[in-house]
Amino acid sequence: MSRAWNFSAGPAALPQPVLEELREVLLEFSDCRAGLMEISHRSKQFSAVLDSATVRMRRVLGVPDDYAVVFQQGGASMQFHAVPLNLCAPGEAMALVDTGTWTSKAVEEASRVADARVAWSGKPFGYTRLPEPGELDAAALDGAAYLHYCSNNTIRGTQFQAPPSVDLPLIADLSSDIASKPVDVSAHEVIFAGAQKNLGPSGVTALILSPWALERSRDAGGSRPGGLPSMLDHALQAKKDGMFNTPNTWGIYALDRVLAWVESEGGVAAMASRNTEKAEKLYGELDRTEFWRPHVQGTARSQMNVVWRLPSEMLEARFVAEATEAGMLALKGHRSVGGIRASLYNAVPVEAVDALVGFMQEFERVHG
Amino acid sequence: MSRAWNFSAGPAALPQPVLEELREVLLEFSDCRAGLMEISHRSKQFSAVLDSATVRMRRVLGVPDDYAVVFQQGGASMQFHAVPLNLCAPGEAMALVDTGTWTSKAVEEASRVADARVAWSGKPFGYTRLPEPGELDAAALDGAAYLHYCSNNTIRGTQFQAPPSVDLPLIADLSSDIASKPVDVSAHEVIFAGAQKNLGPSGVTALILSPWALERSRDAGGSRPGGLPSMLDHALQAKKDGMFNTPNTWGIYALDRVLAWVESEGGVAAMASRNTEKAEKLYGELDRTEFWRPHVQGTARSQMNVVWRLPSEMLEARFVAEATEAGMLALKGHRSVGGIRASLYNAVPVEAVDALVGFMQEFERVHG
Repeated sequence: MSRAWNFSAGPAALPQPVLEELREVLLEFSDCRAGLMEISHRSKQFSAVLDSATVRMRRVLGVPDDYAVVFQQGGASMQFHAVPLNLCAPGEAMALVDTGTWTSKAVEEASRVADARVAWSGKPFGYTRLPEPGELDAAALDGAAYLHYCSNNTIRGTQFQAPPSVDLPLIADLSSDIASKPVDVSAHEVIFAGAQKNLGPSGVTALILSPWALERSRDAGGSRPGGLPSMLDHALQAKKDGMFNTPNTWGIYALDRVLAWVESEGGVAAMASRNTEKAEKLYGELDRTEFWRPHVQGTARSQMNVVWRLPSEMLEARFVAEATEAGMLALKGHRSVGGIRASLYNAVPVEAVDALVGFMQEFERVHG
Repeated sequence: MSRAWNFSAGPAALPQPVLEELREVLLEFSDCRAGLMEISHRSKQFSAVLDSATVRMRRVLGVPDDYAVVFQQGGASMQFHAVPLNLCAPGEAMALVDTGTWTSKAVEEASRVADARVAWSGKPFGYTRLPEPGELDAAALDGAAYLHYCSNNTIRGTQFQAPPSVDLPLIADLSSDIASKPVDVSAHEVIFAGAQKNLGPSGVTALILSPWALERSRDAGGSRPGGLPSMLDHALQAKKDGMFNTPNTWGIYALDRVLAWVESEGGVAAMASRNTEKAEKLYGELDRTEFWRPHVQGTARSQMNVVWRLPSEMLEARFVAEATEAGMLALKGHRSVGGIRASLYNAVPVEAVDALVGFMQEFERVHG
């Protein structure tokens, strides 16, 4: 038994040095005389962990000083409800760009508490492309409190090169490409991200809140009948540093270690350059021959999740099975769309992509 | 450096064999060729983990077959909001027994979405006792959809010997004494518990739902304007086996391992007998001399969290410092009440209590 190349879409590959570090803190952490999972979240040792994770998030992502950074539970799906609850007064409008599953779900959740408007949808295009500047529906944007978009769609394999250009506060679901490249945090009012792709294990959600978002949480959110539930109250969570109740202490520590690894590798700029290299190698192979059928349109191609089809479902099944055999894991496309998907998050090394491309060339030689 | 006796109120001591097992799955789990945190929550290997954890919860706690067991995120505090949201139609009444912090918070959260009525409060008694049968306010109970109680108060050191006897559906917050003794699950409609005391690490919440609770979730909860947010929709979560979105995979695995340890030690009956032995030893010492000042009244004394005062705050600080020095951790009372608190959850062995009692006798000899 040994570790194979792991192309899982999430929970995803973590850097091996981080896993080795985590192994060392289970029975004894720092000067605690107890393991990391066995100490109070209000102990001085865990407070130091939380501080470290927060400061690192700020430094690695370039978060402005007046923004809050908190770690929550529940994933992006919980924020699909919490964000409109905080940012919209009852019945107020917000707008979304629908680029597939995650934004379709966000529309559904937002509709429960706000006037949720789809300003553009990729559905007529099979979610194979993203909106061009100017394609967003001006009527949907008019009077909306904000625009929600998902920077990278793990299932469809699409990724925004830059945030949609609109004259509205921007809210981004960065679950699957946070820390994979530089992002202008100051151009956003709320950023949220489940940790389980580029930041750490599942069970932690990073939440970045601008002063505007905190004010809306108090004013618009606070104006809801009964007020906001404490656990979903962004202003309250920011005030409590995400410690309104016991957080996922293990997950936050792991996230801190992953960010330390990102820093040691050169930060998000280095991640971006490596991620570009990996994506270019894989898309290069996909474009080399008609055998592979990548279906995402040009500039919408994701560097994080590369998706393609083969000439038949039988060949796709064979591809996944033989790749697994050859030490390349989790290449099956999402159950809702089929095909092949290779996720190339930060912790997937260039060597993994080289191995995959080598395997693909051999597979095409035999079956093409 | 070595592991000390850990009396933390939570996140709390975990069984050392479990920690050793966890250490082994970080880099490679089962036949995954990847670590436990690096595999899809929908992989066959994690599906087996989730099945195992669910089946074990059922077996260890004696959950009736027609009840659902799901693992959520957000802790008990999230359920303070979710439970009334699911079980009450808008404006409908529910009742609570207020035994301190956790139920006071539950009243506040429930008030946002229901007519929350306090049927009894320990506040006039400094939360040092629990209600006698018949003390609950009949007017508050009249027409309430259910009664919420917290079986064990970690801060005040009180614990119900048996659920309050009322003619209403019972909802229990079992966060701090679940799996510490046999509980009649079938007498309850909803049980929820943060894992970080007796079940595992923080970041996992166990949720047990009766057929009545599931029906109320669909009918009463479903009648709310906009419907229930998916992440807080108990019926939906039960339908999805808690996998509406990515769960805390590491936490669920750890919980499964803790429950396996409970079973290997003889199950909840054996836990109860050991917990009684530990509590009797410590309360025996507290009752031996006037130097210790346990203030919880007789039958309300908790076996999980034993609280007491010393003649002065200076002596209390000294007690905590010297105990830490002597290898007994986290004995400081909760910041809201002060004093001393020793938490004696399942993973705290009898030897730890023997060591504590020995230390106490010496401390009293010197300072008494």
